[in-house]
Amino acid sequence: MTLTMGRIVDHLTRGISIPHATVDLLKPGHREVEVHGIVTAFCASQYVIEQAVSLGANFIITHEGVFYSHQGMQECLRHDPVFLQKSRLIADSGIGIYRFHDTIHRYQPDGVMIGLLRALDWHTYVVKQLPTAAILTIPAMEVKEVAEYIKAKLHIRYVRVAGELAMPCERVGIMVGYRGGGELAIPLFLNEHVDLIIAGEGPEWETPEYVKDAAYQGRNKALIMLGHAESEAPGMKYLADELSAQFPMLPVHFVEDRPVFQIV
Amino acid sequence: MTLTMGRIVDHLTRGISIPHATVDLLKPGHREVEVHGIVTAFCASQYVIEQAVSLGANFIITHEGVFYSHQGMQECLRHDPVFLQKSRLIADSGIGIYRFHDTIHRYQPDGVMIGLLRALDWHTYVVKQLPTAAILTIPAMEVKEVAEYIKAKLHIRYVRVAGELAMPCERVGIMVGYRGGGELAIPLFLNEHVDLIIAGEGPEWETPEYVKDAAYQGRNKALIMLGHAESEAPGMKYLADELSAQFPMLPVHFVEDRPVFQIV
Repeated sequence: MTLTMGRIVDHLTRGISIPHATVDLLKPGHREVEVHGIVTAFCASQYVIEQAVSLGANFIITHEGVFYSHQGMQECLRHDPVFLQKSRLIADSGIGIYRFHDTIHRYQPDGVMIGLLRALDWHTYVVKQLPTAAILTIPAMEVKEVAEYIKAKLHIRYVRVAGELAMPCERVGIMVGYRGGGELAIPLFLNEHVDLIIAGEGPEWETPEYVKDAAYQGRNKALIMLGHAESEAPGMKYLADELSAQFPMLPVHFVEDRPVFQIV
Repeated sequence: MTLTMGRIVDHLTRGISIPHATVDLLKPGHREVEVHGIVTAFCASQYVIEQAVSLGANFIITHEGVFYSHQGMQECLRHDPVFLQKSRLIADSGIGIYRFHDTIHRYQPDGVMIGLLRALDWHTYVVKQLPTAAILTIPAMEVKEVAEYIKAKLHIRYVRVAGELAMPCERVGIMVGYRGGGELAIPLFLNEHVDLIIAGEGPEWETPEYVKDAAYQGRNKALIMLGHAESEAPGMKYLADELSAQFPMLPVHFVEDRPVFQIV
């Protein structure tokens, strides 16, 4: 049976109820095109697309959008040279791109979360899976030790930390992507009794300000922001491993991109 | 004439057209209460409120919300100990708090922007004021030099940089607060021909991913993210200087808080 883009998409979405207004979409690409190789990535950046071409892959499965927006291409890009060069590369390469965001987050448990937990080697410490967070009891250590452990495991250069570095912690809430905002993150401290939240990204004046106040009041609460890509790329790497096992005849590669930021 | 909270608010809002659904609000506080001293701050944190009490000020003018949300207190905080302790301090102190966000951003030019430009000593380099950005031509330097200059001028420990550190730049777009998102920031590169955008905060998968692609394509585009508070606190310091000059009999203090994050 020929492995087409449509068959891979059907395989990825089987049994998952997706919201009507989903951002998940095969574009560009056609369901009937045969897949010769897959690249998974956090984001289909210019670098990732070029790597896919070099690897002979004609199908990219990306978590975030291709054109710098959650909802799709912004009108303001129409005459933008960066957009035009990237669009030309995509068109010339004939690569299909599947945005795989809402569906993988709706896996039970969340597929992106599973990837991060496995990359951290913490999947056996999970005590509770909530729709937008995993609650863990880890071996007791200080916040700074957790930060160093994460940096080593995920091969990242820095994390941003709110709260006291010497604070001991054991009960941890983990949230991938942009789930570090106050509405989702802050209630975990009270309702789930976590000492530490590890999140991807979120507004700086919400959870970080809460943790600053909490620490100033002498309470044991801390926050580690990994970065959006840093928190979700492991899920796309895990997806590549899974697809590779499920379709052993198909070359499947995870492409790691450079971090968006460096610290100066 | 007695200086009341109402008179200060009227002074700050005079001639400014404020949207109906504004977050600007005197709460807690009453218009007729006499003001003995003012504290301005980026955020009315636990630390800032305690400083205001020590300084004998009974009126705080804050840019961001008191309870970790742009729109006001979240229901989930009702039983939260951090919220309860902070609320008790506010009630016991009898301090009035005025959220001064939408109005100061509608000053022409934006009052928060003016504060940042003056702190950077760059107000004479402005060539264009847009509603959400200032366009500057600065003396030519490399991105890394700009980053070091900003850190020294604003007394901040780090900035996050996307793009090449050695890139020369001269035409700069500056955006305070959460205006670093793709929709507002990305068009400045094409429409205003900026080499470098300096912003407070914004989603990591928007402008930073655009700049990563642009740099990978060999284009001269870079981004410096200052941090939300780091970009807006100078505006609240500038406001304190202005109020102090306008009401010379009134003690007015800007209170600088510690940064929410440290890098590990």
